[in-house]
Amino acid sequence: MQRILLDHGSGGRASLRLINELFLRHFGNAILESLDDAACLELNGRVAMSTDTFTVDPLIFPGGDIGSLAVHGTINDVAMLGGDPKYLSCGFIIEEGLELSLLERIVASMAQAAELAGVSIVTGDTKVVPRGAADKLFINTTGLGSISVANPPGGARAAEGDAVLISGSVGDHGLTIMSSREGLEFETPVQSDSAALHWLIKRLLDELPEVHVLRDPTRGGLATTLNEIAAQSAGEVYINEEAIPVKPEVREGCSFLGLDPLYLANEGKLLCILPEELSDRALEIMRQDPVGREAAIIGGIVSGRRAGRVVLQTRIGGQRLLTMLEGEQLPRIC
Amino acid sequence: MQRILLDHGSGGRASLRLINELFLRHFGNAILESLDDAACLELNGRVAMSTDTFTVDPLIFPGGDIGSLAVHGTINDVAMLGGDPKYLSCGFIIEEGLELSLLERIVASMAQAAELAGVSIVTGDTKVVPRGAADKLFINTTGLGSISVANPPGGARAAEGDAVLISGSVGDHGLTIMSSREGLEFETPVQSDSAALHWLIKRLLDELPEVHVLRDPTRGGLATTLNEIAAQSAGEVYINEEAIPVKPEVREGCSFLGLDPLYLANEGKLLCILPEELSDRALEIMRQDPVGREAAIIGGIVSGRRAGRVVLQTRIGGQRLLTMLEGEQLPRIC
Repeated sequence: MQRILLDHGSGGRASLRLINELFLRHFGNAILESLDDAACLELNGRVAMSTDTFTVDPLIFPGGDIGSLAVHGTINDVAMLGGDPKYLSCGFIIEEGLELSLLERIVASMAQAAELAGVSIVTGDTKVVPRGAADKLFINTTGLGSISVANPPGGARAAEGDAVLISGSVGDHGLTIMSSREGLEFETPVQSDSAALHWLIKRLLDELPEVHVLRDPTRGGLATTLNEIAAQSAGEVYINEEAIPVKPEVREGCSFLGLDPLYLANEGKLLCILPEELSDRALEIMRQDPVGREAAIIGGIVSGRRAGRVVLQTRIGGQRLLTMLEGEQLPRIC
Repeated sequence: MQRILLDHGSGGRASLRLINELFLRHFGNAILESLDDAACLELNGRVAMSTDTFTVDPLIFPGGDIGSLAVHGTINDVAMLGGDPKYLSCGFIIEEGLELSLLERIVASMAQAAELAGVSIVTGDTKVVPRGAADKLFINTTGLGSISVANPPGGARAAEGDAVLISGSVGDHGLTIMSSREGLEFETPVQSDSAALHWLIKRLLDELPEVHVLRDPTRGGLATTLNEIAAQSAGEVYINEEAIPVKPEVREGCSFLGLDPLYLANEGKLLCILPEELSDRALEIMRQDPVGREAAIIGGIVSGRRAGRVVLQTRIGGQRLLTMLEGEQLPRIC
């Protein structure tokens, strides 16, 4: 079995072989193939830039792997600002001894995710660290996309009278990683929701440029992301617990493990906040897209004495403050 | 002593504290402070994008640290394509247990390097991995800069009749990391050459837009970088060993450790390849800059039967092929 050696990170002949035989073969495009220190891109006007490092454990999980996740995660962040993701850089940190076949599987998955999403990997970097100095593989991706909407969505724009929509069920990714890492099996298998959301966002913004906020509830889950938005906008966010889509198998798995799906990471979901009168149309647009079929209106923004907070209308009719995630139940979720 | 906890990477309250109290405090600028999923930038025309992940060990070394290195390294790669570096993203992977004061020292150094270079850190990401899953700290930076020169320098443009210049002495960074890691002390201390080269490059390209190639000889050193260029351009590169500046203390340290300075990494040097008739002026421009004071003309490009190769005119009058680095003597050099 071939394994990654320190030589592959030397910058010398073995590095070149790895670049030619693995990265260029899978990622190949004219920009990357110039092999200069930087990629030369054409960009005009306002550009969204986002970076994310992926350290997920295990590297491969039901519904995806660190490669596809690294593409989806950064594409989504670019798109949340109204950017049309076009270019990605990638930086690999590889532990000496990683099986080459595993690396290739992940690189191929990355290439496929990028191709399906219509983005090019235009520049990259590979470091190999000695055994024990990293755990198998970490991937950084940084993405760029032109912003065409006049007034880009942003957390600070949530306003009184807005509706809050989620594009689908929550908790799928977090529970999948957790159970996959621990080797747990549920009666109905769970699967990560890792997906690129930029097409859905493009359709939303093309028709409804008035969207105030788009945000993907990744680490810390729906609850934490809503708290960030509440803090940025100083609005009071209220959420109807009953309206939040949670898959039965996720609800069951969470209840078994004592986890709250509202705090679990999602990798293919977005929160959309926009004026209430546009919410039905936004819901229709979302539901027409495969990644938004289970979209739902889950709450709204009011002004009130709990400005900056998130209030949950519970299933049994009460109200409670939904706070930010405290502590860390699940490291290396993304 | 305060240490980084897994909580700091959760995306929840502790993450937010780390972002506010450490990253925003040091990196603060209006774009970063929006705290949205992506940064909104203004860019026009051709843009150079480059990414680099830094895994250097030790984190702090004579002449710099992983923070300043992460800024200089990526700025330089953007500049080598004729880009004027303006924006940086940064992605941190932190090992649980890292001392907060050490992280802060590095973040402060990064902020200072960015400020001195006139670039803004506009978006970032922090992951914390459990103890043992990474070695202390890795940093990815991705940089952007507008390209104003009509015909950007590139490895493939090296042509017959060109001169090859180096902006200063070689081997300083590699030997410093090596000796610093091993706790070796030399009579005359060595120091990393880590520096931002974009001002020097701007002056060069403003006056001499005909420059064919700019490349920083980092991993694999001068020898490996020249081989890359020879392969890209299919020219024969000849180098006069005697003309290559090497500091006496670096020569001495290398001879003691059995290392060849031509294969050691540099982090503040550039190779410049341009038509021979412009080489004297290029040398003058370089020498006027503090980072180019020891610049030298070290060789040229000819056509010949050794196309794609690098030929070294040795000190004793012979010739030998200077090959790419084989193997890896020094992992985690940058």
